[in-house]
Amino acid sequence: MELQVIKIGGNIIDNELKLASFLQTFAALPGPKILVHGGGKIATEIGRKLGIEPNYVDGRRITDKPTLDLVIMVYGGLLNKNIVAKLQAYGCNAIGLTGADGAVLPAEKRAVKSVDYGYVGDIIQQQVNTMLLQMLVEQNMAPVLAPLTLDRGGSLLNTNADTIAQAVATAMSSLMPVQLVYCFEKRGVLMDSADDNSVISSINSKSFSELVANGVINEGMIPKLENALQAVQAGVRKVMIGHADELGQLITGKAGTCIS
Amino acid sequence: MELQVIKIGGNIIDNELKLASFLQTFAALPGPKILVHGGGKIATEIGRKLGIEPNYVDGRRITDKPTLDLVIMVYGGLLNKNIVAKLQAYGCNAIGLTGADGAVLPAEKRAVKSVDYGYVGDIIQQQVNTMLLQMLVEQNMAPVLAPLTLDRGGSLLNTNADTIAQAVATAMSSLMPVQLVYCFEKRGVLMDSADDNSVISSINSKSFSELVANGVINEGMIPKLENALQAVQAGVRKVMIGHADELGQLITGKAGTCIS
Repeated sequence: MELQVIKIGGNIIDNELKLASFLQTFAALPGPKILVHGGGKIATEIGRKLGIEPNYVDGRRITDKPTLDLVIMVYGGLLNKNIVAKLQAYGCNAIGLTGADGAVLPAEKRAVKSVDYGYVGDIIQQQVNTMLLQMLVEQNMAPVLAPLTLDRGGSLLNTNADTIAQAVATAMSSLMPVQLVYCFEKRGVLMDSADDNSVISSINSKSFSELVANGVINEGMIPKLENALQAVQAGVRKVMIGHADELGQLITGKAGTCIS
Repeated sequence: MELQVIKIGGNIIDNELKLASFLQTFAALPGPKILVHGGGKIATEIGRKLGIEPNYVDGRRITDKPTLDLVIMVYGGLLNKNIVAKLQAYGCNAIGLTGADGAVLPAEKRAVKSVDYGYVGDIIQQQVNTMLLQMLVEQNMAPVLAPLTLDRGGSLLNTNADTIAQAVATAMSSLMPVQLVYCFEKRGVLMDSADDNSVISSINSKSFSELVANGVINEGMIPKLENALQAVQAGVRKVMIGHADELGQLITGKAGTCIS
């Protein structure tokens, strides 16, 4: 059966009602599934109370040691465990993991070039512990991955959740058919960013180039779609992009944008 | 092979050097093993910064909602994940779990009698997910359990780590031979509390009663030893109590107090 690798971001995590509704739908999905979650505003709020101010260089957040401890607490603890606990209550046997757990997400600390991003990791897709994930999904468990990876030296690292989802989906595609689902705050890739109903139903590498050339696809979406196309080229059956509220329809291809 | 269920408390967790040394020894132990960890002063420190003051009734800490979120962050996130990451660096394939993960530690919220302890759980030993723990140790993984359990309603609950260790050891003893090891700040149960070398090498239920009657065993140790005796009666092969610095010798029965 097809494995669903589903990614949610801060926009859902920050909204208790939306999150609960999303998790109920996720819990009810049949077949093997993995959830990858991002961060959310709560980390910034808690950080502020602890005297940890966000530090940005070129629009990218720098992860210094206090920020790393903060995200381990919030992403790996508060968010991950509350998601798992809710899924359990909804009848889904979830198991929360950071990249350290079972060394499931090995990474390299990003090399310092013009910017030192601090404790930020680039996931090593070839080393994702697919055996562990396979064993868990075969036991009808749903791994819930926090956006934290692990380097060889035993340091946890802050890693983008979109990239983790892509790497996990790609790595797992060598063992079973995989669909990657990116949930975000729009109903899909839009032809007209002002019109939520102008969802482009499917994109391939050729139409992607055209949409970029025509200026239809904007800056924020370009890396997401490049990731998606890369995943498809590397073996993922297809990638769906759409709204978290429409998870059920996204899975079955009845909503959102399909990248194949 | 005998399963080792090893419990460490705040006194080790709060000391970075001692913790690193302990984890190196733990990582090198052959055979199946499970680590159960307690809290530590860091939760109180972080709580204070977040404006969460500890609230005690009759010497017992009350877990209100902000305190629950705090311990999920600190026990389930910061402490658990840093222990796991360090174990991975030492070559031990650790996997950190709260009671919610794989519903490994089901509990009931403690009923309100004279005191409302808040979000505190009493673990249901009969429902410990022994299949999951067995599957993990059979894969040479070392589960690292945070002192958090899960109730049916999907709420995480704060639970004493000694009790978790006892329940896990007892539950696992139906599947394999188990030794339970309590590491604390003394070299064992002492004949003379002022003399660290007066370790009582072994205690059984008969000598326990005598030692209590003679006033040798003090109040703090009584519940720990009662737990230990209960575990032995329920199927755990033996319980060792001693200093974390002597883990290797505790395992082999060459240090500490043996309860059998």
